[in-house]
Amino acid sequence: MSDTEREIEVIVRDNERIDDLQYKGLRLIQNPESFCFGIDAVLLANYAKASAKDTVMDLCTGNGVIPILMSGKTKASGLIGVEIQEESADLAIRSVKLNALQDRVSIINEDIRKLPEHYPKGSVDVITCNPPYMIESHGLRNEADSKTIARHEIMCTLEDVAATAAALLKTGGMFYMIHRPFRLTEIMVTLNRYKLEPKRMRLVYPYVDKEPSMVLIEAKRDARSRITVEKPLIVYERSGEYTQELMDFYNGKA
Amino acid sequence: MSDTEREIEVIVRDNERIDDLQYKGLRLIQNPESFCFGIDAVLLANYAKASAKDTVMDLCTGNGVIPILMSGKTKASGLIGVEIQEESADLAIRSVKLNALQDRVSIINEDIRKLPEHYPKGSVDVITCNPPYMIESHGLRNEADSKTIARHEIMCTLEDVAATAAALLKTGGMFYMIHRPFRLTEIMVTLNRYKLEPKRMRLVYPYVDKEPSMVLIEAKRDARSRITVEKPLIVYERSGEYTQELMDFYNGKA
Repeated sequence: MSDTEREIEVIVRDNERIDDLQYKGLRLIQNPESFCFGIDAVLLANYAKASAKDTVMDLCTGNGVIPILMSGKTKASGLIGVEIQEESADLAIRSVKLNALQDRVSIINEDIRKLPEHYPKGSVDVITCNPPYMIESHGLRNEADSKTIARHEIMCTLEDVAATAAALLKTGGMFYMIHRPFRLTEIMVTLNRYKLEPKRMRLVYPYVDKEPSMVLIEAKRDARSRITVEKPLIVYERSGEYTQELMDFYNGKA
Repeated sequence: MSDTEREIEVIVRDNERIDDLQYKGLRLIQNPESFCFGIDAVLLANYAKASAKDTVMDLCTGNGVIPILMSGKTKASGLIGVEIQEESADLAIRSVKLNALQDRVSIINEDIRKLPEHYPKGSVDVITCNPPYMIESHGLRNEADSKTIARHEIMCTLEDVAATAAALLKTGGMFYMIHRPFRLTEIMVTLNRYKLEPKRMRLVYPYVDKEPSMVLIEAKRDARSRITVEKPLIVYERSGEYTQELMDFYNGKA
């Protein structure tokens, strides 16, 4: 039995699977009955920037896909993922071990709204967040369901994310988020109110002739108001295959 | 001598020229030494919507290109252009006559900041605006120059436009503006503060693989926060020629 097989035997439960992140051999333990990562996580991990010495915190980290991908995409060694749901945080902790990233990635099972009580103000360089997209009342069914909590603003709103990011980021610190375009005004108004000034924005279009399905935002703590709206990020060619830019996110060229 | 020739003899001064708006025979008197209309005016006139009975006011109308184009694009008969610079307003008034639009288009030589004193609150259905794009201090040279006043926020800021539009528009009334993407956050924050809620937004990209150069915004007085970000509006094909969508703005198909 190889080291890898022994490791998997220890960590993965019956209802879980190991997915290949298709990037530098990184893998992720997921429970198909729970919330599984999507292209938005890949896009956010590619959009965010971090240097070797940065403290990088991912809010609403879920199964930890963002800090694990960012361990491959950046040189950052102080990666912290924060997740309120115990089961998801447990998945994330085991995925960190699976990738032998314990010295670079920490997972905290905590409510992001309580973080400013534990963490010193202005102590974080970079914050990333792939938050729940849907406003609480939108098509809600079962509040107890972990997928619902990941998708709807039940335990964490846009305002909660902005308030925590504003409290923890140092002046000049960077905030990266992916969200839905239909909430763009609210995103800009909220970030601006918390002095997280949007500096870059990139809309993600499934096809060049369709409405965008996602928006990537880079904001800077205490910066002046001036934003660069970047060229469109187009996911699919007309043929239905990924564009070259998307493929580069996976093959390590990006 | 035909009627048209006689008309032109009366209206056009030596330093002016008559430009063909390339739409339903509409023409515009312009002074090449002053501010001349660009593609932004054409884009805004195509983006805005108005019904026959609507009172439609264009703020910072300059030489009146927007209400004159909208007389062709819509059935609105209550089109009003407001311009602070006397010379520009005079050009606009003469262009209205040149197109025999006196019964549909009125031009007022007035400071938009004073409009709420003269006009009843909530009396306007649709407001359009192609305002000065540049913040006052950006690369400013000569304040007295009419081009500078048209391009820089010397006599009219984004805040002035939003304040006047909010005062004049009825609940559910529509506001249409074209602006520069680098001010997108400020635009959204300001419109939201004045209860002009952005409902549609379309970014104008010179080419599909370049940053957008302009942004079209539709806002609704007193609406809830939810925006549709539309598909990209691309101006040029790779060959440098207008895209079909742009050509349709001119040939009357749009």
